[in-house]
Amino acid sequence: MKAIRFADELTIEDIPQPEPGEGEALIRMELAGICRTDLEIVEGYMGFTGTLGHEFVGTVVESPSDEELIGNRVVGDINLAPWVEDSVQQRHDPDRTVLGILGKDGCFAEYLTLPLENLHLVPDAVTDEQAVFVEPLAAACEILEQVHIQPTDHVAVLGDGRLGLLCAQVLSLASSATVLIGKHRTKLELAAKNSVRTLNRHELTEADHSNFDVVVDCTGQPEGLEAALNLVRPRGTIVMKTTTAVSPKVHFAQVVIDEITLVGSRCGQFQPALDLLRRGLVSVDDMIDAEYSLKDGLQAFEHAARPGMLKVTLKNDPS
Amino acid sequence: MKAIRFADELTIEDIPQPEPGEGEALIRMELAGICRTDLEIVEGYMGFTGTLGHEFVGTVVESPSDEELIGNRVVGDINLAPWVEDSVQQRHDPDRTVLGILGKDGCFAEYLTLPLENLHLVPDAVTDEQAVFVEPLAAACEILEQVHIQPTDHVAVLGDGRLGLLCAQVLSLASSATVLIGKHRTKLELAAKNSVRTLNRHELTEADHSNFDVVVDCTGQPEGLEAALNLVRPRGTIVMKTTTAVSPKVHFAQVVIDEITLVGSRCGQFQPALDLLRRGLVSVDDMIDAEYSLKDGLQAFEHAARPGMLKVTLKNDPS
Repeated sequence: MKAIRFADELTIEDIPQPEPGEGEALIRMELAGICRTDLEIVEGYMGFTGTLGHEFVGTVVESPSDEELIGNRVVGDINLAPWVEDSVQQRHDPDRTVLGILGKDGCFAEYLTLPLENLHLVPDAVTDEQAVFVEPLAAACEILEQVHIQPTDHVAVLGDGRLGLLCAQVLSLASSATVLIGKHRTKLELAAKNSVRTLNRHELTEADHSNFDVVVDCTGQPEGLEAALNLVRPRGTIVMKTTTAVSPKVHFAQVVIDEITLVGSRCGQFQPALDLLRRGLVSVDDMIDAEYSLKDGLQAFEHAARPGMLKVTLKNDPS
Repeated sequence: MKAIRFADELTIEDIPQPEPGEGEALIRMELAGICRTDLEIVEGYMGFTGTLGHEFVGTVVESPSDEELIGNRVVGDINLAPWVEDSVQQRHDPDRTVLGILGKDGCFAEYLTLPLENLHLVPDAVTDEQAVFVEPLAAACEILEQVHIQPTDHVAVLGDGRLGLLCAQVLSLASSATVLIGKHRTKLELAAKNSVRTLNRHELTEADHSNFDVVVDCTGQPEGLEAALNLVRPRGTIVMKTTTAVSPKVHFAQVVIDEITLVGSRCGQFQPALDLLRRGLVSVDDMIDAEYSLKDGLQAFEHAARPGMLKVTLKNDPS
């Protein structure tokens, strides 16, 4: 089968179809999304080698027990660890592997394998083009697991990239006083179409300083944290979604004196994200910039790396 | 009256007794404590000029309304701002002044003034030598306002200085699995005498890595935060009590990936601290290294600046 692999460089290779391990299902990839993390892995981030990709929707081909699953569409939790009741603990198992990121071949291939307990059925009402956003949407929902957003909280989401657009929609459900602060006219227009209040960062005034109860940094830039510190009120909360190789410089004395809380936030649970898509409470329409065939994966990666891209997807051609 | 003042240098001066402003009481200082912040102000920190000092117990001499207060012992909240219901909001009023730190003459003088609403009566059961610790003890109690410590939480307090000793005692009330990690034998022995579990930092092993639900950095050193990150579990919480001019370097990608919460923590409410002292649940005995007369304040400052000092106090000589 075809697979997009990374060792020293990005290649498309013909490799054997993977054999499901114990308790694993075999899944035919239908649609997969290229994520910033994939681009960073290609830059050498995390030292991963193997088949890339962790955002996908697929169809179950083989199942070790639950045979009713076969033929159904699924999305899959990316963290693999022995099942434990507490999903948080499972996501942070120090010995976990991570699909397409750490010790486990990913989904940029015709087929992949995942343990049954990682799979979530995709409701009929949710298209492939929507389901491919479940993983990043789960990361947006994760904020509500970690931070109690009150209905009157002034919330600012910094950065109008893909994650910022998703976070702003999710947090707007928790507080109507949520605003997305970005710099790209077309993306802010897309957010506004989905009932999100928006502000161009050039329109920020002195009155916005220390004015927000919660600020979410989705800029993907080391400078994002400083911008967040400028907006958050004393005793407020900053949610950090940005991982960069270069750590931001932070004036920690201010964090202590103003008693700011900084919350690192990464992966979330899939079911709440699927529910939001099914109920139409979050829209991911118009967020796919381009769709490539899996075999044209190298061009797809080049396209995804262009500035300002929201999402480039890879389609598995009908077999 | 005598007052310890700072402009370009530390001096003891004779200045007029302060006139209480509207709503303010006049207080005779009985005993005051020299704090690390005082030492930092003398190094130029915060650009403060005026009478130093913010930790004190005193006797009310004049009261604008509540005359029953006269003759009673009080301690005083250090943040001065128009009264609002929410004490958190008051403590963080951007236009506030702070006793002996920001725009308000402090307590290293024979007399000081404070608004009535800042004052708390000291119960008879609490001595002056205990009451002078109310302000730092309130800062320890503040942690419980900000973070929900559960009875089974593994809590580590880093640093066996004055604040570390107080935090470890307070947090041991919330969770028996609290341990103070320090490096000074005599201080760890003092903590153990007060029923606090202790560990010399040289005894830390690989098993302590990622093993704590909550870590409180009271080291006062930029390196403290890195040590805390090494001890905290994924999804755990680090309480930051350290303010240093040099900000620590932090690997923020780890904070995000492990979903760590960092909580800046500073001042707290006085009443819970007074209650703990009155009930004997926290001991501050043996924590005063030396007591000086106010007129010997310069020597007292020199003593307080020596390495390893817990608390040097200033006594107002009987008038």
